[in-house]
Amino acid sequence: MTRIRYRFWLLVAGFALCAGGTIWPAKSHLEAGERPGDELRDGDPEAVAKILTSQQDAWNRGDIEAFLEGYWHSPDVSFSGSSGMTRGFQAVRERYHKNYADRAAMGELDFSQLEFRRLGPNAELVLGHWHLKREKGDVGGVFTLVFERFPDGWRIVHDHTSAVP
Amino acid sequence: MTRIRYRFWLLVAGFALCAGGTIWPAKSHLEAGERPGDELRDGDPEAVAKILTSQQDAWNRGDIEAFLEGYWHSPDVSFSGSSGMTRGFQAVRERYHKNYADRAAMGELDFSQLEFRRLGPNAELVLGHWHLKREKGDVGGVFTLVFERFPDGWRIVHDHTSAVP
Repeated sequence: MTRIRYRFWLLVAGFALCAGGTIWPAKSHLEAGERPGDELRDGDPEAVAKILTSQQDAWNRGDIEAFLEGYWHSPDVSFSGSSGMTRGFQAVRERYHKNYADRAAMGELDFSQLEFRRLGPNAELVLGHWHLKREKGDVGGVFTLVFERFPDGWRIVHDHTSAVP
Repeated sequence: MTRIRYRFWLLVAGFALCAGGTIWPAKSHLEAGERPGDELRDGDPEAVAKILTSQQDAWNRGDIEAFLEGYWHSPDVSFSGSSGMTRGFQAVRERYHKNYADRAAMGELDFSQLEFRRLGPNAELVLGHWHLKREKGDVGGVFTLVFERFPDGWRIVHDHTSAVP
């Protein structure tokens, strides 16, 4: 009996060590804001591309609020450009409404030359060109978007946009 | 003898399954360019900050080549700004040498208000302000840097820099 018990506990200890091994490495790189299991999901650049298409469509029907859905609704979201950095969803929202007060100012938006670069299980870098076709004169340039995956999907956590004369 | 062998192979099979468990979950989220084991390392924002300090120091002793060490030496590295996108290390290098041909043009560089955001086991977003103190007039603005970790350390894979008038 003693030998059988000894073997039993040896097995239990062995399997416990093994099981620990399967859990700890997966957890060891979880960062603030990540959720256990997230790091095991597959990539999803199509989902990110779909958000950009939705944004373009929203813009072109004059719906800035729907366009803004692409951004992280957080005080930590940020927008950088030639007027410095805008911090927080509310400030980003106000900036868009101020700079694009009517359909004439909004014009027709076109995103092009999109490039996607996976930065991790829950982060994607998107580079691209933007163009606004407007009666008062076209404008356009380049943008850098950092997307992160949240429980409700991918959102822009940082946007750096430049006009190119 | 037969019973002992049976138990031995049962143990071997059990441990093989366990060992597999410790490897597969860790591998399942490896992306292109990631290396097995990378996802198990801890974060290292200090290493990224150190590169920025090195860049600032290099700039302020007029050493653009040492400054450029912070960038990924790859045809895929990119630099976005008000002149569009510059692609590839050689083009980024030429841009810096052209725009900052002498010490007077380089001035004294200061990075400030740095913010670090972990994007994954091997990617970090850095936002900040830059300022060049120059006799012919100061310039400055905001930047967005995306760092990735390579076998030889963290490097800037994308830089989007804006001057703020």
